[in-house]
Amino acid sequence: MSLTFFTPGPAQLYPTFEKHLQTFVSEQLGSISHRSQQYRDLHKFTVQQVRTLLNVPETHQVLFLGSASEAWERILFSCVELESFHLVNGSFSKKFHDYSQGLCKYAHLQEKPMGEGFSASEVIVPEYAELIATTHNETSSGVQMPVSEIHKLKQKYPDKFIAVDIVSSAPYPELDFNLIDTAFFSVQKAFGLPAGLGVWIVNEKCLQKAEYIRNQYSIGAHNDLPTLWKNALNNETPATPNVMGIYLLGKVAEDFNRIGVKAMRKETEQKADLIYKFIESTSGFSPFVTEKKYRSQTVVVANTEAPSADIIKAIKEKGMVIGSGYGKYKASQLRIANFPATSLEQIQSLLHALKAL
Amino acid sequence: MSLTFFTPGPAQLYPTFEKHLQTFVSEQLGSISHRSQQYRDLHKFTVQQVRTLLNVPETHQVLFLGSASEAWERILFSCVELESFHLVNGSFSKKFHDYSQGLCKYAHLQEKPMGEGFSASEVIVPEYAELIATTHNETSSGVQMPVSEIHKLKQKYPDKFIAVDIVSSAPYPELDFNLIDTAFFSVQKAFGLPAGLGVWIVNEKCLQKAEYIRNQYSIGAHNDLPTLWKNALNNETPATPNVMGIYLLGKVAEDFNRIGVKAMRKETEQKADLIYKFIESTSGFSPFVTEKKYRSQTVVVANTEAPSADIIKAIKEKGMVIGSGYGKYKASQLRIANFPATSLEQIQSLLHALKAL
Repeated sequence: MSLTFFTPGPAQLYPTFEKHLQTFVSEQLGSISHRSQQYRDLHKFTVQQVRTLLNVPETHQVLFLGSASEAWERILFSCVELESFHLVNGSFSKKFHDYSQGLCKYAHLQEKPMGEGFSASEVIVPEYAELIATTHNETSSGVQMPVSEIHKLKQKYPDKFIAVDIVSSAPYPELDFNLIDTAFFSVQKAFGLPAGLGVWIVNEKCLQKAEYIRNQYSIGAHNDLPTLWKNALNNETPATPNVMGIYLLGKVAEDFNRIGVKAMRKETEQKADLIYKFIESTSGFSPFVTEKKYRSQTVVVANTEAPSADIIKAIKEKGMVIGSGYGKYKASQLRIANFPATSLEQIQSLLHALKAL
Repeated sequence: MSLTFFTPGPAQLYPTFEKHLQTFVSEQLGSISHRSQQYRDLHKFTVQQVRTLLNVPETHQVLFLGSASEAWERILFSCVELESFHLVNGSFSKKFHDYSQGLCKYAHLQEKPMGEGFSASEVIVPEYAELIATTHNETSSGVQMPVSEIHKLKQKYPDKFIAVDIVSSAPYPELDFNLIDTAFFSVQKAFGLPAGLGVWIVNEKCLQKAEYIRNQYSIGAHNDLPTLWKNALNNETPATPNVMGIYLLGKVAEDFNRIGVKAMRKETEQKADLIYKFIESTSGFSPFVTEKKYRSQTVVVANTEAPSADIIKAIKEKGMVIGSGYGKYKASQLRIANFPATSLEQIQSLLHALKAL
């Protein structure tokens, strides 16, 4: 039986994935040299599609890494000489903070319990912090930081770098890259592709800072920003990249662009609205995130009265897979991904099945 | 027209690749959680097949990274507090050295021109160097360091760590992991898979050293050895890994194990022998590596009298792709990969076509 995945990543694969994979195989793209014109054309195509989709200006490069977690490290190496600042309200924002400590930086944090969100007005960034690390979508708790609040935060601290984790939400958030220095995502979430590729969007100011820092401290040796940037100008990567992942991302981003990112964002909101209405109005379920403005549009977290494992099991018997809660909420919550790969009709089927339990 | 790739990586895909890819897709493995038992079973299977293939004892872990280049960085972070030592005779051994400098370590080197190899007896390792970095197969020059010389070098300096780059030769070299502390490879070479996965084999001594170093210096934050190791004990990875790459590696390694690594090594030598005999005896060609004991069995480099680009073009018209020389030898050399994905018959066809030029 073929399953439909509503899990927050790895997730349901996008409907066109198999077709693009078949082309990759039949055109023998797994064998081409990563120093050939054929590769450079493929690389350039993907970068262009991502630029169009996320409205990334020429001041920023689109770079490829092994995972989004690698981006945490590379951003900290590149933008932080001594001190970083982190908004922490879940496991992934906490890991970004922990990476800074792992690199022997001083990592400040402002913390809230899981399920709560941040507004720009309440954030106080310490004077010497060089980077503000934000998480647009906390995959662990289903909290989003509204894009308007992220933009306001940068306007409040225009001299500090701002990084935005859009791992489990891109291309939903409409970031203004005139304000955002760097952002990153991975392909196994809303792009509906197999895991193994991280995408790092980063501006020239970060490059300049990295070049400054390396006069005194290490900025890493593998995929360091100046080397990645130099290679990107030639549509290449320093090491042999995940060519398959880059190809598939380009083709799926092209599919997204054909639909139009505005229409996709609207559909995401319509589907999210259905899910939230269901968990608000159905006994046995309630939304974990109480303040509506902080509710994620791409990963919905629901408290359950029954053990969530029982619900997951019953739903799986109907051919659908939903995620458990994260960490200490594993047994008492569900996480339902709302990515482009699952249609309005599939969401309706899921809610119908949950209703019938 | 379907091409046959004799390029040194990305390379010809292994004949069973498509079948395994199809299974990956039909079993929806691109959507499974990397924290599920299904993933852990998949991970464990691949590790077991790699252990069997390369005779890796339980003292060593088999870890997954984004690329083999990443392994350079992680080895240096983990095993070198202050000083490393590098045998350099080509571009990739040089990059390992440069990574050490990039991490602000003191990187000693003993250098030879491209095309020349190292014997253990001539190597002098500085007293304070903590790690000896060797390259079994220099993909840029077609020079191998015989396994016996690598083993002798460790026996000469038993208290130092030894790392072996087997990127473009594994599973050919029969390393004795009782002597070798760490080794690494990537899957787009002799395993005949799409790029995007590095494999890092590393022992407990390296782990202990990393745990010691991190009391004083950063050992990196992403894929740091203690975190990778801890996750590996549970058949997991710290971040979402390239599940497709790990699955395909396990299946191809299983295919290799069915044939038997001894038979595979013998076939590699037979095919290499054919290629070397051809370039030694055919006018217009000569082997770049003059000393036979240093000639790579997996990447054969030939000097050409005619511009190598002309030969590459003519051969491509016959449906075969061979590599150009590396760096300054781009125009005057050919690099011919001799990986398991290309059969004896295919090698014969290539040599026949080269003869007929």
